[in-house]
Amino acid sequence: MNDLGSQGVARANGTVPGGDTRFTPPCVAAAPEEEAASGWGFKDTRFVVQPNGSVVLTGQRYNISNVELPTLMPWMSKMLVAPLGYENRNEPHYPPQIPAPKQRPALIEQLRKFMQADQLSDDPLVRLRHSHGHTGAEIWAIRYGTLERVADLVVFPQSHEEVVQLVAACEQQDACVIPFGGGTNVTDALSLPQDEKRFVVAVDMRRMNRVLWIDLVNNMACIEAGATGRHITAALAAYGVTMGHEPDSVEFSTLGGWIATNASGMKKNRYGNIEDIVLDMQVVTSHGVMSRPQIAPRESVGTNPRNFMFGSEGNFGIVTSAIVKLFALPAVQHYGSVLLPSLTEGLAFLYELSSSGAVPASVRVMDNTQFHFGQALKPKSAGLAAKARSSIEKFIVTRLKGFDPDKLAVATVVFEGTADEVAFQEKTFYRIAKRHGGMKGGATNGRRGYELTFGIAYIRDLTFEHWAIAESFETSVPWSRAMELYERVHNRVIREHEARRLPGRPFFTGRITQVYATGVCMYFYMGFYCKGVDDPVRQYMEMEHAAREEILAAGGSLSHHHGVGKIRQQFLRDIYSPCALHLVREVKRAVDPNNRFGAGNHGVTDQSATQPHDAGGIAT
Amino acid sequence: MNDLGSQGVARANGTVPGGDTRFTPPCVAAAPEEEAASGWGFKDTRFVVQPNGSVVLTGQRYNISNVELPTLMPWMSKMLVAPLGYENRNEPHYPPQIPAPKQRPALIEQLRKFMQADQLSDDPLVRLRHSHGHTGAEIWAIRYGTLERVADLVVFPQSHEEVVQLVAACEQQDACVIPFGGGTNVTDALSLPQDEKRFVVAVDMRRMNRVLWIDLVNNMACIEAGATGRHITAALAAYGVTMGHEPDSVEFSTLGGWIATNASGMKKNRYGNIEDIVLDMQVVTSHGVMSRPQIAPRESVGTNPRNFMFGSEGNFGIVTSAIVKLFALPAVQHYGSVLLPSLTEGLAFLYELSSSGAVPASVRVMDNTQFHFGQALKPKSAGLAAKARSSIEKFIVTRLKGFDPDKLAVATVVFEGTADEVAFQEKTFYRIAKRHGGMKGGATNGRRGYELTFGIAYIRDLTFEHWAIAESFETSVPWSRAMELYERVHNRVIREHEARRLPGRPFFTGRITQVYATGVCMYFYMGFYCKGVDDPVRQYMEMEHAAREEILAAGGSLSHHHGVGKIRQQFLRDIYSPCALHLVREVKRAVDPNNRFGAGNHGVTDQSATQPHDAGGIAT
Repeated sequence: MNDLGSQGVARANGTVPGGDTRFTPPCVAAAPEEEAASGWGFKDTRFVVQPNGSVVLTGQRYNISNVELPTLMPWMSKMLVAPLGYENRNEPHYPPQIPAPKQRPALIEQLRKFMQADQLSDDPLVRLRHSHGHTGAEIWAIRYGTLERVADLVVFPQSHEEVVQLVAACEQQDACVIPFGGGTNVTDALSLPQDEKRFVVAVDMRRMNRVLWIDLVNNMACIEAGATGRHITAALAAYGVTMGHEPDSVEFSTLGGWIATNASGMKKNRYGNIEDIVLDMQVVTSHGVMSRPQIAPRESVGTNPRNFMFGSEGNFGIVTSAIVKLFALPAVQHYGSVLLPSLTEGLAFLYELSSSGAVPASVRVMDNTQFHFGQALKPKSAGLAAKARSSIEKFIVTRLKGFDPDKLAVATVVFEGTADEVAFQEKTFYRIAKRHGGMKGGATNGRRGYELTFGIAYIRDLTFEHWAIAESFETSVPWSRAMELYERVHNRVIREHEARRLPGRPFFTGRITQVYATGVCMYFYMGFYCKGVDDPVRQYMEMEHAAREEILAAGGSLSHHHGVGKIRQQFLRDIYSPCALHLVREVKRAVDPNNRFGAGNHGVTDQSATQPHDAGGIAT
Repeated sequence: MNDLGSQGVARANGTVPGGDTRFTPPCVAAAPEEEAASGWGFKDTRFVVQPNGSVVLTGQRYNISNVELPTLMPWMSKMLVAPLGYENRNEPHYPPQIPAPKQRPALIEQLRKFMQADQLSDDPLVRLRHSHGHTGAEIWAIRYGTLERVADLVVFPQSHEEVVQLVAACEQQDACVIPFGGGTNVTDALSLPQDEKRFVVAVDMRRMNRVLWIDLVNNMACIEAGATGRHITAALAAYGVTMGHEPDSVEFSTLGGWIATNASGMKKNRYGNIEDIVLDMQVVTSHGVMSRPQIAPRESVGTNPRNFMFGSEGNFGIVTSAIVKLFALPAVQHYGSVLLPSLTEGLAFLYELSSSGAVPASVRVMDNTQFHFGQALKPKSAGLAAKARSSIEKFIVTRLKGFDPDKLAVATVVFEGTADEVAFQEKTFYRIAKRHGGMKGGATNGRRGYELTFGIAYIRDLTFEHWAIAESFETSVPWSRAMELYERVHNRVIREHEARRLPGRPFFTGRITQVYATGVCMYFYMGFYCKGVDDPVRQYMEMEHAAREEILAAGGSLSHHHGVGKIRQQFLRDIYSPCALHLVREVKRAVDPNNRFGAGNHGVTDQSATQPHDAGGIAT
């Protein structure tokens, strides 16, 4: 009873197939898809401004790819009160100067005993790419400045055993080991500590991307930690299943990276966040291999060291594989959207929905600016008919239904499940939406809004090239303080922008991206025009720091899913007691006494970063 | 906007109340309900056999209380093939000899500076009760033997600050600290390590049972860790909410104990297990107080030391309070039951239900023996009419519907939620049950089955008094191996019983108590008649050990929710790699360098317990 055929027969007969029901799927070579070296995402995809001022996202990947977007630049210019346009370009100087690597021939020699030549690289561009995780400051640095310290060597292990040997070799040669997944942490987690004097080996895990086994009867799979979301999704879909984890970075981020950052997926309402999905993992530590011979559903087995790994940000070791839950691909997937009078009303709508027992896989509410942002990303209308349609739509929304175009918000939703489940959820969803003044916006807009997440990620690189520095940040907050938090952050951004005498007006928009019984996740974009501004990155970071002060003062968290890394470690003393931070450092020392895994994130090796504030508490 | 009235108005208006919405409920003195010293549960409740052979559960608490149960003893006698009865009594000799306490006047003096006289006790019976956690062997020992080592002092702190001072005093005087919650761990977690030479202080947390604040808007409450389930349930119900956690021991076990044992509740499908419910906690460690100034929904904040505490079994510190999620009390609660042709078919039914998207709050399937056990717990029929009804029922079930009375199984179910949710779940539940040959058994039987959990817990003490040693154990197992596991355990129990030449026949029954996407939790009872048996406790423990070998060999876990304690620590080497166990010990040393919290559970201080087996792997 170990083959898929007889499993299917047993299930069709209404019995549970017995025995060891795991199988190893054939290894399907993933189509080579080159990622960009100097910016976000795939190499074939970037926003370019045309001489007529229209913007085109190159390539064919996204719902906004390869069409003229005539209103994006004008809209951004209007919002920033700044002359963004084709002529006004901030030309990148990629690649920057890259520091020469340290030399450690003895280590190389040792690694070459079990690795092929193509598994080691000291190519400057490769080392550069493996020394950042796509924070705005890092991307600005590689395009307009430099990174002061980069990894000395990048290795590409192909198996768990190679990782074991690699860590042993680094132990022997006292090299520092930095695990690398998708390189999309956006927290400076890959940025090397300034005082790191050792030879630094970045370990790119992405050749370890096999599905080691699938168990369709027990809904589990064992997957190598370097598999990216897009590969996992495709490999599992071939068998009618999914692990359901869809962070915004799902195309590029890896299973191991999700664990290390305690990631959250857009469809967590149905599938859970990463800590709910991962049942077990194998980790190479400086003490050896942390693993378990078998795994059962939910256990009470003492202090499970697995628990230390969620959010460990590379501090403890390298996850080489993990056992994850599987879910049947939903029989039904429906998109939807709802126009709402305001963000406040959108929050109230989500609040009521959250206790309805019918929360859809994903539901998000965009604020007014983000609604218009979405409109600005619409392609050139194909003639008069489309324009007329659009005018009629506007008329209905604003005049007939009484929405204020400067206040309305929009919810996008993805329903997934059995036909019955989805029917139940949809009925509940639209009933509650109506009570909050909601008007159906249709499935097409819903799908577009959901998928825009992926295309929109490329826009930061575009704005950089036109003198606008912009980035996202996020938090979670209890329901009762969500609007207060939104307003505080918004007002602080305006005040900071003014106090710093920055040009134009600041860009600010937010959306509510997750609901919990206890509150929501909020995701913000902030930016400003920076031509002529002295050290715009510093200005941006100080403003983000100020925004975070407001977030904490309004009861928000340091991060809902991005993590701490190094970008937010100065705030750790505001969210943990000194003893809690001390324990984290002590545990780090216990798990990794020689700081072999020297990424140095969330203050484990930098006590000064986590000393209590002089003034005590959060500045407001 | 900080009072309940205006919160209610805001919610009625469909808006989210703003600001800090926490309030402190008045402290309601819990009615004094004395717990039994020498056996399970409340003092007013125990099974007694009457001269006519009927059994009565004294008191008024349970659905089987205070009625004659005429068929229980005859049925047990039949199952065990042994003469259980009124005359054949194994009279307990409680209290046993209790070792005199060590003396540490300097510590007492220090404690008396901040504690009242009634907060310290060296009463032998109090010390005895605080040195066991209700495993069968422990109860047998206090009734028919002795405990070799008991705590030297029991303290009853009344506040977090007192716990801080207490731990500091014990640090200064080098005393060993053992946290005590409900004392119902059933894992020997409170049994003192044999090599513990220090003065031992058991810390009874149950006077710390206040609800510190409730936030009905954001669905959170902060509760002191010594609050028992019954107090929490009552205190929250007054405000229309629940934390939804209902382990079998909910009447006696405490919030802190649930965290320390990584507990699971019967209604976890709706409310989650303890790790899903607890958002944050305050812990007194030997390094100080681990705490956070505020908490938001789901966070990614580095290595959160909170994660170390789930399943820590007293090894790391004392949880003094925790922030938990709240859920509205369900608008609708329906019970139900279904007769099924067999346990195998019951499993297949649960399997299909598990992927339906409509899993009820609790669903359990009892095997054939447990079905008859339930029947044997029915009260004396009130005359001919009841007998006739019962005969007609039997006729319908066995003749008309074709159920084999020696094979049939029974599912009991609790639906909770909004009216819509429950309607959807019920429709789905009975539709799938029908496909598996299920026949509705009614709400009364369903409710009875669910509530029997609480009354039945007293039965172990009854069987002890009539020469039958019996106890429960549990596991979790993937779907495909669940029936294999059940059969292996059953057969092993029969083989062991035979090989040991124990009298009569062994008692064995199981039920499936939880469903997960990946498998189920199975809960077993095992027992045998032991009059004339040499060291029956050792025999029982060896049989349970043998059963656990079968469980592990069939892909089951060491424990689903009871934990490891000391009773199962010899198996740790079968479920963790040597490195994983080494890390757990290193982390223990980091968090508690002087082993202040010396309970010594799951092998953290006893390396020998976790050495790899000589023969390698699990004996089968």
